[in-house]
Amino acid sequence: MPEAASPSSRRPPRARYRELTLREIKDLAWEQVAEGGGAALSLNSIARRMGLTGPALYRYFANRDALLTELVREGYRGLAEAVDAAVPGAGEADPELRLRAFVHALWTWSAEMPHRYLLLFGAPVPGYAAPEDTFEQAFRPMAVLFDVLAELPPGPAETRAVSGGPLRDQLAGWVDARGGEPLPPEVALRAVRCWARLHGLISLALVGQFTATGVDPEEVLRVELDALLAGH
Amino acid sequence: MPEAASPSSRRPPRARYRELTLREIKDLAWEQVAEGGGAALSLNSIARRMGLTGPALYRYFANRDALLTELVREGYRGLAEAVDAAVPGAGEADPELRLRAFVHALWTWSAEMPHRYLLLFGAPVPGYAAPEDTFEQAFRPMAVLFDVLAELPPGPAETRAVSGGPLRDQLAGWVDARGGEPLPPEVALRAVRCWARLHGLISLALVGQFTATGVDPEEVLRVELDALLAGH
Repeated sequence: MPEAASPSSRRPPRARYRELTLREIKDLAWEQVAEGGGAALSLNSIARRMGLTGPALYRYFANRDALLTELVREGYRGLAEAVDAAVPGAGEADPELRLRAFVHALWTWSAEMPHRYLLLFGAPVPGYAAPEDTFEQAFRPMAVLFDVLAELPPGPAETRAVSGGPLRDQLAGWVDARGGEPLPPEVALRAVRCWARLHGLISLALVGQFTATGVDPEEVLRVELDALLAGH
Repeated sequence: MPEAASPSSRRPPRARYRELTLREIKDLAWEQVAEGGGAALSLNSIARRMGLTGPALYRYFANRDALLTELVREGYRGLAEAVDAAVPGAGEADPELRLRAFVHALWTWSAEMPHRYLLLFGAPVPGYAAPEDTFEQAFRPMAVLFDVLAELPPGPAETRAVSGGPLRDQLAGWVDARGGEPLPPEVALRAVRCWARLHGLISLALVGQFTATGVDPEEVLRVELDALLAGH
């Protein structure tokens, strides 16, 4: 679902003005998030920078949380679009290549949009809880990962892990609650492992924990992905 | 190195008063960090809550960054102490048990001190850069991990990964720069993989990404650790 970004020239001036104003508000909001995280968002400061009165701005967003939610939605949408654009369809490439494309898309997007990545997956903004429906959006890239991994033969590590213990039921419950195509718990487990390994390396890299080491986290990611693909 | 927490009764009253005041400042500061992250730290608000004037408080900490650095130091120290206390010495247990103790210590500490974990390893506080020497402290738990992993036979995944490509030199450079005992790059790579897997699961768990899934991240961690121990 592409966002209504570029105002069509056929739209009436009032609607165009509204779209342009909305875009400017959100651009300034992302600037604030880039500088100080979600907690730095300030409607009043955005109004000042745009030369608007507070009440004029509040016609667009009732409060900080409404604007934050719009950014969260835009963030998830951008990530999902990047993943969709990068991962070939099931008939277009083998599953290993599709998985590498997925991992590369997430890595690249987070490197290009570090503050968006941290807003979505970093520490929560104090005093803010994202509405339920944003979690649906958050699941879109995971659904792509499910789809890709379902094409691979199950790995011994996941088969062993779901053969006993609580994980089998937990994973099955999660997959059931999502609806859609049935999915073996082994596949869901591999998706979680893949996501957590990616998130670990991405977030350590984004906050600069690799800088002093001279170790390239993307090389480590390659090792982690190879191991996952080998089924271990 | 235990911190000077409990003032000795033999110390002169002025020194005791200073220690108690310092402790109270830091306790209130941690409360602020717990509520709003490092960006929420405010010396003025702490002074108000303690009934001190601003200048009185500034005799303890010259500015927000000085207080933040003290919290970062205290955080790293607490983590290193938790790890040291939990991991048996080389002669006291086999390396697998030592590694499980390390992982469990980090997991438990982060669950008990989520805001400390996020202050140390989450998104940086806007406008703040921790001084160089805190990175030394940050390395203490990693040094324990090096020590534990050096006792295990090299795993095929790490051996393969350092046999060619840039990782071998990057890891060797990192280990050399640290000084101390020489360490094969395979061991350093396994340490990085272990740390990143742990961080991925810990940080996703801390920010609530597992809540809606019903999947226990500690069970996933067990799978990840087993795979690492198997050398994959």
